[in-house]
Amino acid sequence: MIDQRLLAFEVVLQEGGFERAARRLSLTQSAVSQRVKLLEAELGQVLLVRSKPVRPTPAGRRLLPYLAQLRLMEAEARRALSPRQADGPLRLAVGVNADSLATWFIGAVAEVVRDEDIVLDCVVDDQDHTHALLADGEVLGCVSTRADPIRGCAAMRLGTMPYLCAGSPAFRAHWFPHGLTPAALARAPAIVFGRHDDMHEAFLLRHFGLDARRYPHHVVPSSEGFMAFAVAGLGYGFIPEIQARAHVARGELVDLAPEREEVVLYWHHWQVQSPVMARLARAIGDAAGNALTSPTPAA
Amino acid sequence: MIDQRLLAFEVVLQEGGFERAARRLSLTQSAVSQRVKLLEAELGQVLLVRSKPVRPTPAGRRLLPYLAQLRLMEAEARRALSPRQADGPLRLAVGVNADSLATWFIGAVAEVVRDEDIVLDCVVDDQDHTHALLADGEVLGCVSTRADPIRGCAAMRLGTMPYLCAGSPAFRAHWFPHGLTPAALARAPAIVFGRHDDMHEAFLLRHFGLDARRYPHHVVPSSEGFMAFAVAGLGYGFIPEIQARAHVARGELVDLAPEREEVVLYWHHWQVQSPVMARLARAIGDAAGNALTSPTPAA
Repeated sequence: MIDQRLLAFEVVLQEGGFERAARRLSLTQSAVSQRVKLLEAELGQVLLVRSKPVRPTPAGRRLLPYLAQLRLMEAEARRALSPRQADGPLRLAVGVNADSLATWFIGAVAEVVRDEDIVLDCVVDDQDHTHALLADGEVLGCVSTRADPIRGCAAMRLGTMPYLCAGSPAFRAHWFPHGLTPAALARAPAIVFGRHDDMHEAFLLRHFGLDARRYPHHVVPSSEGFMAFAVAGLGYGFIPEIQARAHVARGELVDLAPEREEVVLYWHHWQVQSPVMARLARAIGDAAGNALTSPTPAA
Repeated sequence: MIDQRLLAFEVVLQEGGFERAARRLSLTQSAVSQRVKLLEAELGQVLLVRSKPVRPTPAGRRLLPYLAQLRLMEAEARRALSPRQADGPLRLAVGVNADSLATWFIGAVAEVVRDEDIVLDCVVDDQDHTHALLADGEVLGCVSTRADPIRGCAAMRLGTMPYLCAGSPAFRAHWFPHGLTPAALARAPAIVFGRHDDMHEAFLLRHFGLDARRYPHHVVPSSEGFMAFAVAGLGYGFIPEIQARAHVARGELVDLAPEREEVVLYWHHWQVQSPVMARLARAIGDAAGNALTSPTPAA
């Protein structure tokens, strides 16, 4: 159902060139080229860089999220027209930070995913970066720490995810016999999730005035790996409270600091939403209200 | 202790240019340039592309793992000379696939990490790609599915990691009332870890002759997320047996197929190893022998 000019633009990008796009569309190369030119003329913008492979111009890139939305709308419309689901499940790409995916997110979306016959394509990136995925049309919604929506989008505040500073009892006895002192913190091995994970640094700076760019730290980009490192007494670090709770109760981990680091999470989505995306957003908002602390309505 | 010409080469790459490298090294720009030229003359190869930012040539790139090894050897030598550890812990970057990091890897390295005062920088990538990290000098050792070592490296067979095809009892009742038939498999939503995860595809092709490039599947790049998806009955997929066992015992997951998919894992490391890396390799080999099935000595 999609406009033939948009389709040509899309396929040229997917295939990386006009010749292969023409083959896939069973058109001549000049017909494909003509359609893209018509689209460029209508929008008054050059959309493609005619390189090898063909790349989108900045204007062409801004068209990509629009295309992704169109595709979803089309799939939903087809499904509404023929409920026997000849096309199979609906594919939805969403951005979500690793800690949310490891904890509350699945429970939040499970019912909608089942009822609406969705297959989810979860794209994980740092919570500060998932946002860019939305702007690029890679995902149709995302969990992000950014409060302000990008143009054309809306942001719903989900709540606050508290992290506690945890380590094993043996680790505390060895490295922090006198509590979290600046001297001990400068030497005790920390655990961080990724190379760009700055929660730990911010904690050292804010509470202890440590300019801790060179504090010793393991990098463990896996939620279970992170937990196993902490439980094995190899380091201490910030673990989502929902995840740490059971380990603290079993005495495998102890709470090292009274402070909680907090991350405020938002659900970002395009303002014009398909019915299924709107339902998904509601489910995420509701579940976050239970799983995270102090949710408030969108600003 | 490192050769001044190598140092110049390293810093130019880290800083992206000669000017910033000169500033960091407190040298004139022409002195830095001269050192790199001397190194290039000695090796008879151009090492840097003088672009903005400066990039390594293929020859320059082949020098990077050598540099990473030198750095580790230097740190270990310093530590041997002054055991009071004035330089702090030893930083080791290793490549490891996500499933190993989530299951047996931490237990394998815990003792060495603690004893040798190491901070680990775990780099996670698909098991078929971690290998490239070693060639680029990004890591000094890696868990990989590739059996043949790259030049200058050795590979030690760790054992076989079996995966079972699992789903919730309710999922099985709904999607596979007559077992795993080709018709049911073509419609039942699968769960895969990443977009480049081909275990599921290989399974459908090998056992059912399904050319299943378009089988419905969720993409969930998180071990807990994957598990939560399966337990919630949203899909079925291949889960490392070590990880699935407890869920199967609790009746949250059932074993859907008699077949096991298997991944043979190898530990790759540079032939010339520092003492600490050699100890780490032994620990990984020993632990893998217990955690994985049928380990055999290196081929």
